[in-house]
Amino acid sequence: MTKVIKNGTIVTADRQWKADVLIDGEKIVEIGENLKGDETIDATDAYVIPGGIDPHTHLEMPFMGTTAAETFESGTFAAAAGGTTMLVDFCLPGEDGSLLNAIDAWDRKSKDQICTDISYHMAITDWNENIFDEMEAVVKQRGINTFKHFMAYKGSLMVEDDEMFASFRRCAELGALPLVHAENGDIVQAMQERLLAEGQTGPEAHAYSRPPEVEGEAANRAIMIADAAGTPLYIVHVSCEQAHEAIRRARQKGMRVYGEPLIQHLTLDEGEYFNKDWQYAARRVMSPPFRNKMHQDSLWSGLSAGSLQVVATDHAAFSDEQKRMGLDNFTQIPNGTGGLEERMAMLWTQGVETGRLTPEEFVAATSTNIAKILNIYPTKGGIMVGGDADIVVWDPSISKTVSASTQKSIIEYNVFEGFEVKAQPRYTLSRGDVIWAYGQNSQPQPGRGKFVKRPAFASASKALSKWKSLNTPRKIERDPMNIPSGV
Amino acid sequence: MTKVIKNGTIVTADRQWKADVLIDGEKIVEIGENLKGDETIDATDAYVIPGGIDPHTHLEMPFMGTTAAETFESGTFAAAAGGTTMLVDFCLPGEDGSLLNAIDAWDRKSKDQICTDISYHMAITDWNENIFDEMEAVVKQRGINTFKHFMAYKGSLMVEDDEMFASFRRCAELGALPLVHAENGDIVQAMQERLLAEGQTGPEAHAYSRPPEVEGEAANRAIMIADAAGTPLYIVHVSCEQAHEAIRRARQKGMRVYGEPLIQHLTLDEGEYFNKDWQYAARRVMSPPFRNKMHQDSLWSGLSAGSLQVVATDHAAFSDEQKRMGLDNFTQIPNGTGGLEERMAMLWTQGVETGRLTPEEFVAATSTNIAKILNIYPTKGGIMVGGDADIVVWDPSISKTVSASTQKSIIEYNVFEGFEVKAQPRYTLSRGDVIWAYGQNSQPQPGRGKFVKRPAFASASKALSKWKSLNTPRKIERDPMNIPSGV
Amino acid sequence: MTKVIKNGTIVTADRQWKADVLIDGEKIVEIGENLKGDETIDATDAYVIPGGIDPHTHLEMPFMGTTAAETFESGTFAAAAGGTTMLVDFCLPGEDGSLLNAIDAWDRKSKDQICTDISYHMAITDWNENIFDEMEAVVKQRGINTFKHFMAYKGSLMVEDDEMFASFRRCAELGALPLVHAENGDIVQAMQERLLAEGQTGPEAHAYSRPPEVEGEAANRAIMIADAAGTPLYIVHVSCEQAHEAIRRARQKGMRVYGEPLIQHLTLDEGEYFNKDWQYAARRVMSPPFRNKMHQDSLWSGLSAGSLQVVATDHAAFSDEQKRMGLDNFTQIPNGTGGLEERMAMLWTQGVETGRLTPEEFVAATSTNIAKILNIYPTKGGIMVGGDADIVVWDPSISKTVSASTQKSIIEYNVFEGFEVKAQPRYTLSRGDVIWAYGQNSQPQPGRGKFVKRPAFASASKALSKWKSLNTPRKIERDPMNIPSGV
Amino acid sequence: MTKVIKNGTIVTADRQWKADVLIDGEKIVEIGENLKGDETIDATDAYVIPGGIDPHTHLEMPFMGTTAAETFESGTFAAAAGGTTMLVDFCLPGEDGSLLNAIDAWDRKSKDQICTDISYHMAITDWNENIFDEMEAVVKQRGINTFKHFMAYKGSLMVEDDEMFASFRRCAELGALPLVHAENGDIVQAMQERLLAEGQTGPEAHAYSRPPEVEGEAANRAIMIADAAGTPLYIVHVSCEQAHEAIRRARQKGMRVYGEPLIQHLTLDEGEYFNKDWQYAARRVMSPPFRNKMHQDSLWSGLSAGSLQVVATDHAAFSDEQKRMGLDNFTQIPNGTGGLEERMAMLWTQGVETGRLTPEEFVAATSTNIAKILNIYPTKGGIMVGGDADIVVWDPSISKTVSASTQKSIIEYNVFEGFEVKAQPRYTLSRGDVIWAYGQNSQPQPGRGKFVKRPAFASASKALSKWKSLNTPRKIERDPMNIPSGV
Repeated sequence: MTKVIKNGTIVTADRQWKADVLIDGEKIVEIGENLKGDETIDATDAYVIPGGIDPHTHLEMPFMGTTAAETFESGTFAAAAGGTTMLVDFCLPGEDGSLLNAIDAWDRKSKDQICTDISYHMAITDWNENIFDEMEAVVKQRGINTFKHFMAYKGSLMVEDDEMFASFRRCAELGALPLVHAENGDIVQAMQERLLAEGQTGPEAHAYSRPPEVEGEAANRAIMIADAAGTPLYIVHVSCEQAHEAIRRARQKGMRVYGEPLIQHLTLDEGEYFNKDWQYAARRVMSPPFRNKMHQDSLWSGLSAGSLQVVATDHAAFSDEQKRMGLDNFTQIPNGTGGLEERMAMLWTQGVETGRLTPEEFVAATSTNIAKILNIYPTKGGIMVGGDADIVVWDPSISKTVSASTQKSIIEYNVFEGFEVKAQPRYTLSRGDVIWAYGQNSQPQPGRGKFVKRPAFASASKALSKWKSLNTPRKIERDPMNIPSGV
Repeated sequence: MTKVIKNGTIVTADRQWKADVLIDGEKIVEIGENLKGDETIDATDAYVIPGGIDPHTHLEMPFMGTTAAETFESGTFAAAAGGTTMLVDFCLPGEDGSLLNAIDAWDRKSKDQICTDISYHMAITDWNENIFDEMEAVVKQRGINTFKHFMAYKGSLMVEDDEMFASFRRCAELGALPLVHAENGDIVQAMQERLLAEGQTGPEAHAYSRPPEVEGEAANRAIMIADAAGTPLYIVHVSCEQAHEAIRRARQKGMRVYGEPLIQHLTLDEGEYFNKDWQYAARRVMSPPFRNKMHQDSLWSGLSAGSLQVVATDHAAFSDEQKRMGLDNFTQIPNGTGGLEERMAMLWTQGVETGRLTPEEFVAATSTNIAKILNIYPTKGGIMVGGDADIVVWDPSISKTVSASTQKSIIEYNVFEGFEVKAQPRYTLSRGDVIWAYGQNSQPQPGRGKFVKRPAFASASKALSKWKSLNTPRKIERDPMNIPSGV
Repeated sequence: MTKVIKNGTIVTADRQWKADVLIDGEKIVEIGENLKGDETIDATDAYVIPGGIDPHTHLEMPFMGTTAAETFESGTFAAAAGGTTMLVDFCLPGEDGSLLNAIDAWDRKSKDQICTDISYHMAITDWNENIFDEMEAVVKQRGINTFKHFMAYKGSLMVEDDEMFASFRRCAELGALPLVHAENGDIVQAMQERLLAEGQTGPEAHAYSRPPEVEGEAANRAIMIADAAGTPLYIVHVSCEQAHEAIRRARQKGMRVYGEPLIQHLTLDEGEYFNKDWQYAARRVMSPPFRNKMHQDSLWSGLSAGSLQVVATDHAAFSDEQKRMGLDNFTQIPNGTGGLEERMAMLWTQGVETGRLTPEEFVAATSTNIAKILNIYPTKGGIMVGGDADIVVWDPSISKTVSASTQKSIIEYNVFEGFEVKAQPRYTLSRGDVIWAYGQNSQPQPGRGKFVKRPAFASASKALSKWKSLNTPRKIERDPMNIPSGV
Repeated sequence: MTKVIKNGTIVTADRQWKADVLIDGEKIVEIGENLKGDETIDATDAYVIPGGIDPHTHLEMPFMGTTAAETFESGTFAAAAGGTTMLVDFCLPGEDGSLLNAIDAWDRKSKDQICTDISYHMAITDWNENIFDEMEAVVKQRGINTFKHFMAYKGSLMVEDDEMFASFRRCAELGALPLVHAENGDIVQAMQERLLAEGQTGPEAHAYSRPPEVEGEAANRAIMIADAAGTPLYIVHVSCEQAHEAIRRARQKGMRVYGEPLIQHLTLDEGEYFNKDWQYAARRVMSPPFRNKMHQDSLWSGLSAGSLQVVATDHAAFSDEQKRMGLDNFTQIPNGTGGLEERMAMLWTQGVETGRLTPEEFVAATSTNIAKILNIYPTKGGIMVGGDADIVVWDPSISKTVSASTQKSIIEYNVFEGFEVKAQPRYTLSRGDVIWAYGQNSQPQPGRGKFVKRPAFASASKALSKWKSLNTPRKIERDPMNIPSGV
């Protein structure tokens, strides 16, 4: 059975044009005028855009002594309702330290629940020969071409510089892309201890303990290590000018570094932590914390200038009860906020409606750029014949006020509560299935989503290795006569 | 009659994939596997890329008391032989100052000669009501959406800051894009006079009279004026870190500024002017002059980082005899060098073969980015169903040594003489016609080329104006009681 | 008769130490412990610092159709009361265009009025042979080693780039230092016209018409021109990050550029122009206008980092009635604010008391650095045997609230009204005379001040010229055989 | 007995003037015209400058399995012959880890040998309670107000980020200044291993293993940690733009960071390591290694711009035989080069003679700035009544060619061999004693030098702590009603 999306304006990362889209099964089979299909999806007065890809989620993640409340089912439903048709979740090794076992565990959690497609980033939280060996299987057999490294969370997830270097080198060999959470874990811990010692136990102290300089330093360090290892680098949740500056500086030396701001950091500021209501502030606790307006301006400009590429959410939703674990001690508040459902509408409203971004740049930041970086374009991330029919009919005339009362997320609050958004998905299609229709009580279809394998050796990684090989230090050939005979 | 390009690897600004391309008449009608056509063009072991677009040429241009030797016929043939299927020439008003008359004059020169498609940028070399009025017709009737401003060449082409501001404002209204030649003409002239007074008459003094700071200053100034006028800006022939830095700084404030390095500045350095052979040095005289390696590194990094977007040639070819007009006085050497035929092969060799650029970035820099900026994408600049069949079968196994003896350009030398290039067009197609086949004595078909009209209001110009309108200064409403009664 | 300042802590730009200062007549004759003199000035619990030097005032200046209300008498009295013992006023050529006549005119105005020492900067507001010739006499006979250039005030004071270059070259020859008012006058005028056309007539539009980019551009341009001319440069009233960035960037290329923030820009922000009271806002109209907090942070950091050197006032005081000349048109509001009396107390309070500056840096910024730049150190600007006894006994325990009701300035308001300052001069000495004693009804002694001649060729100007001569472009010597015989 | 230095031009960091200097015993007692003393030292046609202070030496240092060949006697004699009257050596804890014992050990080595004054920096190479406790005695009893931290030399001297933070906090409390050797030890070690594995064993591989990015990263990290700890920071041997950029960036945020380039990095480049003669190259092995010209330009500009403050040597002289320990493995070549005798003459020749630096800036960089930073100004570092008579009669007419054959250093080579220098000390005085007279076979007087105690809490450290306290995060006071009751 075929479907045709009719009368819309297609927007890709490249251009806008009026055309219909014909879908057969899971794939786009034709784009053009006056197309016909068995079923018609109306896109009149709407844009037709690639389904969003959120490359940064933590669903059902065991963390800080609890487990993120958002399930793969509720999370992918929220995604669908917001126009996101694929997400990439972070897979963390368990106690046995095995990467492959961790993937199995994640598969068990996700497979019967997901209503959109997913993939995983694999986390490297330790370093040994087994991990070195398993990385190859992760890439070649499991189709995961990204490895995450935490520079913070000392004592649990954090890795040291020599471990990062070794892992980055391994990524370079395998054509995989290293990712980093960039905050200096040593200094964060020291500042936490100091603040607690000074009686600062509230959520605002969370922000004080992780200032922008601490993030900028770690970003700068990871970049140097990636350059030494000869690999591109992707920095998650870039929240501040300091980290952005490090990225820009590196790119201007020909280094291939990508930066991912979150929709939260683009739109919410540190004032949130000063709220008199403890629960309000605690709900906003995430790492890095929200920053001030100057940092927001920096991130927005990065998106239009091209020095930052991707807008994600770091969706990690904890309930009020979970947040209260840190009532007497901010370091015990589970870190994380939501955003899967709101990411695209917020970015459109604050970015496109204001003129900061073109519609094309919006598509690039929410879908196309990350698809290219993850090496799955144009199966995902485009509107193109032969690609998956992951498509959103994006209606710029549906306004709504964000509210926990109407959200798909499982938790009882929303950090964007009260924000007015000026666009919504009229329809969300995942591989040809309409999984969300605005105002029509769409329900998730748990288990219909698939795991997307991603091949290694994206184009940038190959360019870089040629460049590096050209710069291989030359060995000076010395005449034996010019070498003394030793001590 | 249909043609099919078979067995190649298509490379666009986005991606690479193996597919055939079916052409019917002037257009691409299908892309896919196992396509068949009336005629087959073999692309085995080659890339299939969008025809190059060179947005910066001066063919038969009256300048400095002579006329550039390269004709529209020889120039477009050189272009075709190098893989460039469209060029944009600079149209200069004549003595009557009329823009429309100038376009007519350019049309008369070009129409029976061109074998590839062309368009014009219109130069604003003065400012008055007639020019203000004609700009509208230039955009709406003639299909020219770009206006060039010279900040150098004092006494002839140069415009002052207030004139630039007025013209930029007019561009903003019309949805046209202003271009600038960024060098401070006052200071160039003063330095020329000083050098001549000191007895410095040789071609090396040309370089001394136009140092990087003089270019960087003008770029910085033009950017400020464009920002004040509320329009994007395109800076031609960015040759140095100083101008590039100004562009980066602006982009990081959300300003939409584009930078165009030339293939000459990417690959040739200032040492050329120190050659003991006067004619050798004089042949390389152009503005801005070649710079040192540090500047070259800056430009290359700009292309991979995205802070620079387009590689052009500023092709303005003068014969040895013409160059000798400045034998006793470097300021009389006609400014200009060639490059139309070599641009793509040089960029591939020095950029892609070294790993500095991916093949996708090569396509973006030679074709796609400028097509988007000029608002003619994807009719030009892509490999896409419905687009013009301006296609190059790009063969990375044809090496050759650049030599004036085999070039298509009309002049007797080549500034890239002796450079080895590692790729060449196996075939060049312009709207479906094979206008160049390597090793097959292709001949130009004068007059087959067309003038390409370009619509106003590219996406970036609309984004910018929304942003600007949000920033419109608010007027303070004052109570009459709070306003004194005056002097 | 001798005086001894006893029991204070001397603070210079270099260090702090406890010592007494013995003065004989106009000079410091001894510094040490347990000194005795005919008269004792008590400095217990106070600092003993060099008298402040304000290098930027406009007393009784004819400007914008009126004359600044502050007289040399009231101005120098305000200075003395604030701890400033020398000021440098801007001398503007009159209708005859003669520099020497202008100095005579300024002398006539000042000589019987001044109670502190003064000097002049000479303004270059036009360019011709007479000015070129007179500049030598200004420097060699009149002892003025600084020339001011306005890049704004189009149609009146503004000079063009070629005029600036010529004047800067002349400065380089004479060992004089060029100064610039850096705002792009063309763009300011265009923005003024546009704002008026849009009905924006209030004082806030003054700020809108002179945004930071317009200042940054001009600073950047002046720096390039000075570099080309081979002279150091001094940029007055640096108000924003954009101008500061241009200065930093230049200094990091070895260029010798100085930047002077004003105490107003360090402490007052653009919100002042949004005051509902027209007169309140109009009183704050000056060029450049006040900026936001981000710019203030930039200026403060520049002072501690050493990229900015001098804090001045641009004291140009106009009465309320004068301000009302612009009641219907912000461009007619006379530009200028006061600050002579408040500069040092405000800088101490906002700078030293907060820990942003050390006491030594405070002395450097208010006195020593400008004395060195103007080449009058250590006659002025230090506490040193042999130097002029221009000394302030600075009492960090006198708090007061700034108020027009108690000020020495002639006008009826004070832009720092209501600010609490935490230090005041207990005594101000000018060449040994106590010209101000806190709380003792000191009265000015009109005419006791002297004009200070300043010799040319400060140390930096000599270093620069060696550097420049090393970089003189080399002429390529070509064999006649390698030079063709011409056209 | 008194001495008078007659007829010279005194140059300080502030100014130049003609005056005589009268010395009584160890102190300067008068500066003025026509002074008389028991003994006359002729300074006709020469400059009279403060004795140089070299804040970075390693005399007789146990390191890399051997001990630096230069003794306190030969080292301080070389210093004297070059115009340096004080040096600060790095004191390293021995096996027992005690700081105080280390000082005792250093005292034993130095006391009978030194012919100039000295002080120590104390190295923190581990972290525990005993070190924490001893730091107080080091500062308060031993007069050492600086603590050095190595971010390189993993497995021996290197400390981790949490240890640095703890030590920096301790420094802040004690009013001491932390110093860092900034190179990322993890990455250096990884690169060493990789290079060795690739068969790169020669001295050039030493340079390859420690690229500029590795230094820049560590500098950036140390700055962040110092900022978090609330202390100024001093970065030794800044060799490259990357580290310099990190320093500039920090200073422009109001952080108080000092940078010390070495005379070697200012004048020698990486080409030295490519010498075909192994011994030649090995002699130049030091960390950081020499860089290219672009980095040299950056360092020179930093000195004139004020972003770098001090020129040192890192004098660590190893004999040819010692260097040969690394014949088969560059990582075993003892790191270090000499320079104590050449520092001032090289800086004058390459800096002042070229016009890059003024004579005043030369004095600041070689003596005054570090005296202020070390809080011993003006006892040391100036020409001032009451200060120590550490004075050099600096003769700008003595040219000589640097040669190991005439040097005072104990080793058999000189890294500046063959350089022509254009000035030399005619006389060097240390606390009034003439310890060097050019051409007069001066001999060292071992044991006459003294250890200089340095008080804590320099002015900058106090300013910083006020600033920091203003920025202390505020605790949000929450109504108990707004705090939930917990899990």
